[in-house]
Amino acid sequence: MNNPEQFVINLYENQPVSFIGSVDQNGFPGIRAMLRPRKREGIKTIYFSTNTSTNKVEDFVENEKACVYFCDPVTFQGALLKGSMETLYSRQDREMIWQKGDEMYYPGGIDDPDYCVLKFNASSGRLYSDLRSVNFVIY
Amino acid sequence: MNNPEQFVINLYENQPVSFIGSVDQNGFPGIRAMLRPRKREGIKTIYFSTNTSTNKVEDFVENEKACVYFCDPVTFQGALLKGSMETLYSRQDREMIWQKGDEMYYPGGIDDPDYCVLKFNASSGRLYSDLRSVNFVIY
Repeated sequence: MNNPEQFVINLYENQPVSFIGSVDQNGFPGIRAMLRPRKREGIKTIYFSTNTSTNKVEDFVENEKACVYFCDPVTFQGALLKGSMETLYSRQDREMIWQKGDEMYYPGGIDDPDYCVLKFNASSGRLYSDLRSVNFVIY
Repeated sequence: MNNPEQFVINLYENQPVSFIGSVDQNGFPGIRAMLRPRKREGIKTIYFSTNTSTNKVEDFVENEKACVYFCDPVTFQGALLKGSMETLYSRQDREMIWQKGDEMYYPGGIDDPDYCVLKFNASSGRLYSDLRSVNFVIY
């Protein structure tokens, strides 16, 4: 836990599933499992692809406060990043994270109106390991 | 998905890990992996054990709005329950969900001040399966 960024990257690289948290218009938190993020810049910026029509996109448009959580269910190590979630629709953003096979989720291809990009900007983090936790700031 | 309660119970029974969501005092959502809940009454009330000293307990004391999430990472089926989270400290509540071996987490035993009970009361749910989702109310 002495190197928070590397700790997060290890979880990011080795877990097939990640989780994103949102807050709905009534103030209730929500959680959704996501496939591994598509791209990252350090641990400051993380990109996901998702369906525009899902509730979580609606939540983020109303309230951009968000979290991203990575967890190893065997070791129970975890990393929680808090920050903001932007929803992006431009052709450039769509192309940036599009992958072969995505037609399974977005039959209309890159321009499918049900396809959008979630861009998470982290501002702080908390790591969990061996019943201990450490907070850190992300610049 | 025609029987939401059974759908949730199947995930509950078969997944070793569950997730709880909170909202911190700055309005940011948080997520924590939890061992399987200790007890449930239908899917309306779900009990967890946890360390009093963790941030999530602090969050729930300030803001009881919460969610519980179950997810099968292979089939990507998921169930999100929204509701409120109470923190309980009475001897009766502590005994109710105490299990042999809990000394590993709470060395002081049932009366360890770092041991408490989280009681989740669900009011609504959302199920995810095969890229579809269904909302339901929990009475």
